[in-house]
Amino acid sequence: MAVNLPPLPELHPVPGIRLGTTRAQIRKKDRRDLVVIECAAGTQTAAVFTNNRFCAAPVSVAREHLAQAAPRALLINTGFANAGTGSGGIDDARHSCAALAASLGCEPNEVLPFSTGVIGERLPVERLIAGLPDSLSALSESGWAEAAHGIMTTDTLPKGSSRQVRIDGKTVTVTGIAKGAGMICPNMATLLAFVATDAAVERAVLQQCLSAVADESFNRISVDGDTSTNDACVLLATGKSGLEVHVARGAVFDAFYGAVRGVLAELAQAIVRDAEGATKFITIDVEQGANQADCLEVAYTIAHSPLVKTAFFASDPNWGRILAAIGRARIPHLDVDRVSIHLDDVCIVRHGARAPEYSEAQGQAIMKKSEIRVRVDLGGGTASARLWTCDLSHDYVTINAEYRT
Amino acid sequence: MAVNLPPLPELHPVPGIRLGTTRAQIRKKDRRDLVVIECAAGTQTAAVFTNNRFCAAPVSVAREHLAQAAPRALLINTGFANAGTGSGGIDDARHSCAALAASLGCEPNEVLPFSTGVIGERLPVERLIAGLPDSLSALSESGWAEAAHGIMTTDTLPKGSSRQVRIDGKTVTVTGIAKGAGMICPNMATLLAFVATDAAVERAVLQQCLSAVADESFNRISVDGDTSTNDACVLLATGKSGLEVHVARGAVFDAFYGAVRGVLAELAQAIVRDAEGATKFITIDVEQGANQADCLEVAYTIAHSPLVKTAFFASDPNWGRILAAIGRARIPHLDVDRVSIHLDDVCIVRHGARAPEYSEAQGQAIMKKSEIRVRVDLGGGTASARLWTCDLSHDYVTINAEYRT
Repeated sequence: MAVNLPPLPELHPVPGIRLGTTRAQIRKKDRRDLVVIECAAGTQTAAVFTNNRFCAAPVSVAREHLAQAAPRALLINTGFANAGTGSGGIDDARHSCAALAASLGCEPNEVLPFSTGVIGERLPVERLIAGLPDSLSALSESGWAEAAHGIMTTDTLPKGSSRQVRIDGKTVTVTGIAKGAGMICPNMATLLAFVATDAAVERAVLQQCLSAVADESFNRISVDGDTSTNDACVLLATGKSGLEVHVARGAVFDAFYGAVRGVLAELAQAIVRDAEGATKFITIDVEQGANQADCLEVAYTIAHSPLVKTAFFASDPNWGRILAAIGRARIPHLDVDRVSIHLDDVCIVRHGARAPEYSEAQGQAIMKKSEIRVRVDLGGGTASARLWTCDLSHDYVTINAEYRT
Repeated sequence: MAVNLPPLPELHPVPGIRLGTTRAQIRKKDRRDLVVIECAAGTQTAAVFTNNRFCAAPVSVAREHLAQAAPRALLINTGFANAGTGSGGIDDARHSCAALAASLGCEPNEVLPFSTGVIGERLPVERLIAGLPDSLSALSESGWAEAAHGIMTTDTLPKGSSRQVRIDGKTVTVTGIAKGAGMICPNMATLLAFVATDAAVERAVLQQCLSAVADESFNRISVDGDTSTNDACVLLATGKSGLEVHVARGAVFDAFYGAVRGVLAELAQAIVRDAEGATKFITIDVEQGANQADCLEVAYTIAHSPLVKTAFFASDPNWGRILAAIGRARIPHLDVDRVSIHLDDVCIVRHGARAPEYSEAQGQAIMKKSEIRVRVDLGGGTASARLWTCDLSHDYVTINAEYRT
């Protein structure tokens, strides 16, 4: 059950981007599992990929192609991740790209491949290629919602975000879709997000924008601390709106950056809301740290603690587990006597010990909510960090114990 | 259900050590929850404590007393951890020590306090003190098994280990008890282990021995990655056997060290076998690393991955999750093309990809076992590390969601 995740909003078409989704029987029968995203000539592309050293074959091939040419199409499958598949997996990814390129009349290295699903098994390339004609005949500028369904794995709901903003007298659209659910602790990106805009953005500026926004959105969520082998986030800029963004500063860039950040933050939070088994959406703010790295280390230590996560699942204000997690965080200096902890607006710990005025009933009232904010003040500086996570429920265990059956 | 944990073995008395256990109603009615361990005059004591910065009040007080005097008694309660309790908690620990000292006719700083249980609530000192006379009247050299029960929290079975060895013509006994179950990822010690020997050991030598052995035993287990606020391991040496260990080298020391290591390794493994909700006992060996720190980082990343742990619970040979965990481990250099992974004796991954001869049936056969060894060869050096962990089951979630109810 997703936590307060609204139905898919209206996803505005992005002139220059067409999407086609089909059922190619990649791993399961009769579910949307193959998506083609076609980009108009002249589209600029920025991307961030997983830092997992066992990155999937499609990640390696996409990085390589991106260095060689401007992409004309993205090819995305669910079912199999094509990771841990060695040189055979690389061949499969290349072969798939070549097949789509032949149909579109472009070069193989103008296609970027993306996969998500089970690790360690070969991609059924023949079924994938057999599905391409259907995907291509479905290509449409209004194909975003179908595509949001087509990239899902254990997601229970599709994720999309879209906004139109006026910048410099022109209407600019930013629309994106993402999938997530498990193996979520992105490091430079998250598991498959595709975002497009009709602004015209220099490639270097686009990459700078995406890297910075990813750091504030996808790189600030965690479901289970497991960084996927297939994480990738792509930002396409078709230029069809006429708005031009040449440099990474100034009012035009700031407005554009704000629109992109809005979409990515919504997608990132949607992934946490629909995390495997999640019943609670938790915001963790760590403040007054010596630097951001310390704040993030404390925040992630709390977010990854199975004991903290099961306490949230149980709506149990067992704040001692938060305190214990802070105490084991790997930061160089921590003066426990200056630490305070709030749940929403209720102070639970002050000067490193239970706040005298705190009552269990107050904590209980907050823990029953489906959205909870944990605020930790380290009392030792001015840096801060925020991230989003969820609880650890029986359904998480069930989903991941039965994932391949 | 504990994983292949045998019933409590015979625990040989250690001349000079008497133990008394009682039901003091500290937190729950009618369970053994208060233990006194009395040491003969002249007993040497070594101890290691948690590195969690939010260490419990009894840990602070025990460290302080240990620096001031040679302990004559240990005072242990379950039910409340007396952590996150600020200066009031320190007062409670001191007050408890003073009460026991008055009964025994020793100084308050000759008593070391230990607590385990719920974090953040004050210790019911009056009930604890009211329970002391019963504990003292129960004092007996054969009180080890009762004490092993008396320190349990969510443990399903008591843990003890004992051996008698002949060294230098003398029979020396080493006997120990421990408790564990959850919040287990010790860092210099684990949650409450008490070990005694009748060898006569210089204090510095005893401490050196304990620190080294703890590093090979308690510091090599993990249930959930959460380091407790209360971890403590104490090694008492009464000297009653007549065997004298003066220096930390040579045949006598080696034999003594081996006996202590045998007891601590058994206790550490017992904690994992009886970990909260555990159904599998997993040994993780990481070999051919550049150094031990790299090997440990990889081993812990695997051991802490919720996805790996749920796959073990499901008996699912979903080795892609092990591969993904290795890939995200925070080590400086990893050549994925040199990595191989074995489950028991079956090679699953070679040169970073699925081994051609591997069949799912082979993996399935191993995953169904209750004891499984994962061996990762990094192919980049001569260092290695071993640790022990368990799976993540529905019962872990249930136990920790309902812990305080």
